Amino acid sequence: MPESHHPTSRPLYRAADLRPLLSPRSIAVVGASARQGSFGERTVHHLAGFTGRLHLVNSRYDRLGERPCHPSLTALPEVPELVVAATPMEAAEAVLEECVTLGVGALVLYAAGFAETARPERVALQARLVARARQGRVRLVGPNCLGLVDYASGAWASFMSVPKPWRPLSGPAIGIVSQSGNLGFALAQATEAGAAVGRILTCGNSADVDVADYVAALAEDPSCSAIALLFEGLSDPRRLLEAAELAWANDKPLVVHKLATGASGAEAALSHTGSLAGSEAAYRAAFARCGAVMAEQYEGLLELTSFLAKAPPPRAAGVAVVSTSGGSAIMAADRAEARGVAMPQPGEAARAVLEARIPEFGSARNPCDVTAQVLTDPDSLRACAGALLADPAYGALIMPNGFAYDTATPRYAMLDALAAEHGKPGCIVWTSQYLEGPGAREAEALPRVALFRSMDRCMAALAAWQARAALRAS
Amino acid sequence: MPESHHPTSRPLYRAADLRPLLSPRSIAVVGASARQGSFGERTVHHLAGFTGRLHLVNSRYDRLGERPCHPSLTALPEVPELVVAATPMEAAEAVLEECVTLGVGALVLYAAGFAETARPERVALQARLVARARQGRVRLVGPNCLGLVDYASGAWASFMSVPKPWRPLSGPAIGIVSQSGNLGFALAQATEAGAAVGRILTCGNSADVDVADYVAALAEDPSCSAIALLFEGLSDPRRLLEAAELAWANDKPLVVHKLATGASGAEAALSHTGSLAGSEAAYRAAFARCGAVMAEQYEGLLELTSFLAKAPPPRAAGVAVVSTSGGSAIMAADRAEARGVAMPQPGEAARAVLEARIPEFGSARNPCDVTAQVLTDPDSLRACAGALLADPAYGALIMPNGFAYDTATPRYAMLDALAAEHGKPGCIVWTSQYLEGPGAREAEALPRVALFRSMDRCMAALAAWQARAALRAS
Repeated sequence: MPESHHPTSRPLYRAADLRPLLSPRSIAVVGASARQGSFGERTVHHLAGFTGRLHLVNSRYDRLGERPCHPSLTALPEVPELVVAATPMEAAEAVLEECVTLGVGALVLYAAGFAETARPERVALQARLVARARQGRVRLVGPNCLGLVDYASGAWASFMSVPKPWRPLSGPAIGIVSQSGNLGFALAQATEAGAAVGRILTCGNSADVDVADYVAALAEDPSCSAIALLFEGLSDPRRLLEAAELAWANDKPLVVHKLATGASGAEAALSHTGSLAGSEAAYRAAFARCGAVMAEQYEGLLELTSFLAKAPPPRAAGVAVVSTSGGSAIMAADRAEARGVAMPQPGEAARAVLEARIPEFGSARNPCDVTAQVLTDPDSLRACAGALLADPAYGALIMPNGFAYDTATPRYAMLDALAAEHGKPGCIVWTSQYLEGPGAREAEALPRVALFRSMDRCMAALAAWQARAALRAS
Repeated sequence: MPESHHPTSRPLYRAADLRPLLSPRSIAVVGASARQGSFGERTVHHLAGFTGRLHLVNSRYDRLGERPCHPSLTALPEVPELVVAATPMEAAEAVLEECVTLGVGALVLYAAGFAETARPERVALQARLVARARQGRVRLVGPNCLGLVDYASGAWASFMSVPKPWRPLSGPAIGIVSQSGNLGFALAQATEAGAAVGRILTCGNSADVDVADYVAALAEDPSCSAIALLFEGLSDPRRLLEAAELAWANDKPLVVHKLATGASGAEAALSHTGSLAGSEAAYRAAFARCGAVMAEQYEGLLELTSFLAKAPPPRAAGVAVVSTSGGSAIMAADRAEARGVAMPQPGEAARAVLEARIPEFGSARNPCDVTAQVLTDPDSLRACAGALLADPAYGALIMPNGFAYDTATPRYAMLDALAAEHGKPGCIVWTSQYLEGPGAREAEALPRVALFRSMDRCMAALAAWQARAALRAS
C-alpha cells in the first residue's frame, strides 16, 4: 500500500473547521444540469428544500427551471460556503483551483477514478488535490463519494436518492457516519421506518475529510443525539480513537461497526476506498478503552445507536420482561443468560400486582407472561408493566412484540409514557416476521422506547449500556 | 418434573393419522359466538373462507349470521372431521367425550389452565384428557394453544389473527411448526412480507399431538416445500429425531430453532407449555446426524427455510457476489471468510465480461463491484450476473441490495430469470434499514431468489446448504 494514498497524519477537523460543510449557508452545484438522471440534475433536485442560498453553475445553461445558471463559480453573486462538483474526474483540479482562489469553505467531489483505481497517475492526482485543498483551506469530501445530507437545513448534497423521514424530526437525532456511501444511505433508510436520523455523512476515498473528522464534528454538535459509525479502515487509526475520546468527553454515544474484518474483505476495501483495514481485534480493544460501543452485526448498528440515544443512564442492573407470549418470555430468559444480563425476580410490591393480574396459566415472575388475556383485559398489561418499572431492581423493561396487529399499537405509547414516568427505557423486541407491520414505525419513533428486531441484540444492547455506564462511573 | 405431564412415548402420528386435522372436509366450532372479540366469534370469522363444510355449535343460539347454530355436536347433520373447542377449561372433558362418542377425527382445545399451571389436579385433568383421546382415537391439539391454519383450504382453525398472504400462494409452501402459538403466528407474518407460507401448526401444551407429529406429517405432505420448526422441549426427543429422519428420507428441508437453551429459559418453558427443555448441545448434535439444519438465530429461521425451499442442489462450492456497492462487497468477503464459504476468482470467460463492463474504479473480481454506474447502464448488471452464474466455479450468486428504491425492483426478477436459466439460486442481501422498502415483497416472492436481511446469515445459509448436500451425497 503506497503511502501516497493518504495524507500524512494531521489533527482532527472539529465542528468549527467543518461548519461550511455541515451547516452551509450557501451551496453552489457545479455541473448543474437539466439532463434527467444526471448527477447534476439529481443534486439540484435534492437541494430544492435547502433553507440557505442555492447557486447553479454550468456554462451551457442560462437558466435551469426557475433558477439562473452561471458560467463559473467566479460569476456567482457571492462566494458559496459549500461547492458540490457533479463533474467528471478530469474537471476536479480546475474546480478545486477556483474554490481555492475564491475562498470556498468546502468541496464535495462525487467523481470516481482516483486512488481507488490503484493506478499511479490517479493516486498522484488525488495526492495533488489533497495537498492543494489543504494549502488553500478548502475542506475536501471524496472523491468517489455520495456526499452528505443534513435533514434540518435541507442541505441534501448528494446525487443519491435521499431517504425521506417518515415523520418530521423533533429534537436531536442520530448522525450516520459512513465510509461507504451506499451502506451509509442504506442505513439512513431507517428514517423511512421511523428512526430519527439527522445527518448522513459519507466520505468515499476520505482523501481529506474522513470518518474521524465527522465523528469529532458530531461529538460537538448539539443536534446530534448519538453517532452510528460504519467504516472499513484508516491510514491513521489514532485519529479515529481521538475522535471517539471527544465523543466520550461530550457523553455522546458512539456505536461502531467495522467492515473489512477478514483478509479478503481487507483486499476488497483497498479497491473500494483505497483504505488500509487494520486488525479488527486491535480496533475492538482500542474502542473499548475510549468508550465506543461495537455493534457486532451490521444490521444491529442503527438499533443499538437508537437505543443509546433514547436511554437515560441505567438506574439498576436488572432487566424485567413483560410478555404476552410465553415463547418470547423464554427467548428473553435465554438471551439474557447468554449476554450476562441479570433478570432478578420482582420485589414484593411488584409481585403483588403481577399475582393479582396474571391468570394461573401465565407467569407472575420475571420473565412475566401475562398471556393472551390482554386481548380481553388490556389494562392488565399496563398494570404489570408499571409495577415492574417501579421496582428498584430493574433498570429497563422489555416488552416483546410477537404477532403485530393494529390494536396492539397503543401498547407502545403506553410503554413510552411509563418509561418517561420512571426514567427508565422501554425496549420492544419485534419478533414478528412482518418486519414493518402495523405499529413498527410508531414504536420506532417514540422517545423513550427502543425497537429491536432481535432479542439477542436487545440483550447485547442492554449489556453494552450497563458497561458504558460502569466505565463512565469509574 | 412429574412424568404425568406427558404421555408415555408412542409412535409418531403420520400424515394419514392427522388427515382429519390437517385436511378436514368438515369443521365444527363448539362455543361459536356472536360476542365480538370472543374466541368463538373470532374462530367463526376466520373460517369464513373454508372450502369444506362448517358447522356451528352453541345451545344459546339458533342462528349466527347466515348460518344455523346447533345445540350440540350430536345434533349436527354430520359427524365433523375436526372440532374446534372455543370453550373454557371446565368444558373440555365433556366436549372430548362427545367427540369420542361420535367418532370425530380431531379436536383443537384452545383453553389454558392445564398442566402448564403445575397444579396437581390440572396436571391430572390433562392426563385424563390425553388417555381418553387416545383410547377414543381423537387426535388432540392443545390444550393452551392457538390452533392451526391451512391456507390452501381456508381451514383457519384459530382465534388468533391470521396473517394474510401478500399474494395468492402458487405451488408448495413452507410449513411452520411451533410449540409457541404466538411465535408461530409471528413467524407466519412473513407471508405479509412476501414469503410463501402454506401452514401454521401450533400445539401449545402438546398433550397429544406435538411438534414431532407435525414434522412427520409435513414430511409426507406434497404441498409442503420445507419445514420451519420452533420448539422449546419435548418429553421424548427421540420422536422428534425420528420425524427429522422422515423429513430427510423425503428430501424435505427441515430447519430448526430451539428455545429454552439456558437454565432460566428452561424454567420459563416449564411454566409455558410444561415442557422439558433438554440440552441444546445434545439436540444440535442429534439434528446434525439426521440432516436437520439449525438456525442459530430466531430471526433467521424463516429466511433459511425459504432459501432451502427455493435452492436446487448446489452445482459448485464457490459463491460469486455482484454488487453495486463496494461496502457490501467487502461485507460479503468478510462474512464468507467467517462462515467458510469459498469465493474463488472468476474463470477467463466471466472475467472477460466483467472487465469489459466494469469501470476502472469498480472491481472486476469476486466480489465484483459494478459500482453505481448501473444507474446509467442497467444492462451491465445483468451481463455481469449472467457471466458469473455461467461460471462453473460458482454454485450461487449473491446480489447485495444496498439502498432500496423503486427503480431497482426489476433487478430482482432479472436475477430470478438468470437463476432459473442456470439452475443455481440467487440470493439478495437486503442491507437497507428500510426493511420492507420498495421491492422487498417482490424479491421475497420470487421462486429462485432468496431474500436475506443479513450478509452473515446468507453466508451461513449457503454453508448449511453445501453441508446438507454433502451429507446427502455421503
